[in-house]
Amino acid sequence: MCFNLMLSNDQTVFTRDDRETLHKIMLARRDMRHFLANSKVDKEVLDRIMIAAHTAPSVGLMQPWRFINILDTSLREKIASQVDDEITKTANEMDHRKADFLKLKLEGIRDCAVLIAVVQAPDDGTILGRRTLPQEMALCSTACAIQNLWLAARAENIGMGWVSLFDPKYLAKLLHCPENALPIALLCLGPVKKFYVEPMLVETGWRNEKTLDSVLFNDQWLDDDGSPKFQNKQ
Amino acid sequence: MCFNLMLSNDQTVFTRDDRETLHKIMLARRDMRHFLANSKVDKEVLDRIMIAAHTAPSVGLMQPWRFINILDTSLREKIASQVDDEITKTANEMDHRKADFLKLKLEGIRDCAVLIAVVQAPDDGTILGRRTLPQEMALCSTACAIQNLWLAARAENIGMGWVSLFDPKYLAKLLHCPENALPIALLCLGPVKKFYVEPMLVETGWRNEKTLDSVLFNDQWLDDDGSPKFQNKQ
Repeated sequence: MCFNLMLSNDQTVFTRDDRETLHKIMLARRDMRHFLANSKVDKEVLDRIMIAAHTAPSVGLMQPWRFINILDTSLREKIASQVDDEITKTANEMDHRKADFLKLKLEGIRDCAVLIAVVQAPDDGTILGRRTLPQEMALCSTACAIQNLWLAARAENIGMGWVSLFDPKYLAKLLHCPENALPIALLCLGPVKKFYVEPMLVETGWRNEKTLDSVLFNDQWLDDDGSPKFQNKQ
Repeated sequence: MCFNLMLSNDQTVFTRDDRETLHKIMLARRDMRHFLANSKVDKEVLDRIMIAAHTAPSVGLMQPWRFINILDTSLREKIASQVDDEITKTANEMDHRKADFLKLKLEGIRDCAVLIAVVQAPDDGTILGRRTLPQEMALCSTACAIQNLWLAARAENIGMGWVSLFDPKYLAKLLHCPENALPIALLCLGPVKKFYVEPMLVETGWRNEKTLDSVLFNDQWLDDDGSPKFQNKQ
């Protein structure tokens, strides 16, 4: 690490400036599909990003995330080719939006500097906190690690895209994963020319974002027409 | 918002200080179970925390997260009581660790200032990015929103605990959720006396953390005995 994380103290009292920095990073984070070809990510930068991923919370302290760095170029090409196939299959389920869908750039597998497959480890039998939602809670833990990774990458001015257009069984076989391990993400990481100003799917007119108010309820679920503003307990 | 987020620019070039702040927040974030009773969270603080949650990425821009703020005290008590039941059920599956398990404080439902149930919305039919892993990708999106929320809370010096000890069907009914909506988290939020120095499950001797090296592979999965150090592509 370039900076001394040992200075961090769990009792740290964060300031308004700290919060502003965090919010700026969150707001500037984008799901990137366009990368600068022939670029690279320095080792210490990637190390810091992976450390951030591993500080994520996990149910029952399972830490079920596994990260596979794809270094072999022929392996990367096999993965890219599988993603191409999956894009075609998805397009064929799109009906009237197929043409618009095929105009979108949906992955940066061949261009990105670093490609990391994220695999959900086989169940380790943890019961604490996951008796009723065992698969869901393990998966949520890995997603939290990916979100940390994503924010840490953006803070390094590195783009990241989470590609989920693949056949997980095929990918598991390609990466020699054990039975019951589940690949859930192909993370494209690397320098970008420009971060999208809005989410790419908004910029391209594919879809609009929901307002915050529309996802906040008090005490009970309400359908779209009857949602009151989220209140705070006084 | 107290600070002007409109100043944030998606092309922001973050600095070493910014990265250090982000890593400090991530490292100081804890899954809290002990809260200061009779405390509160100011409205503008909770607003900022919820804004952070809603800036999360989501597959196909689904934004499948819904947040239900539990304001009604009798509703909170019903939820607490359900969590008590689930703790008993989990304990009964614990075998030789049952006594140790029952010594752990596993939730702060009755003490925390703010209680928020997070519900996965019913499937909206999005295909983009989720043809092969539809439920998984929607769930991962909601988990990313919760991780943003968690980091934003810590940056406000507010503790948060993700309680997953509940019967999701019972909770869905209690919160009047539509069919196929799935409660995945009870988030306890509020001031704490002290943040755990290490994860509570480590502090109590329940479980050790994995090393970062043990979850990083190159090109293929390797079992525990044969994992080489994660390399960076040059």
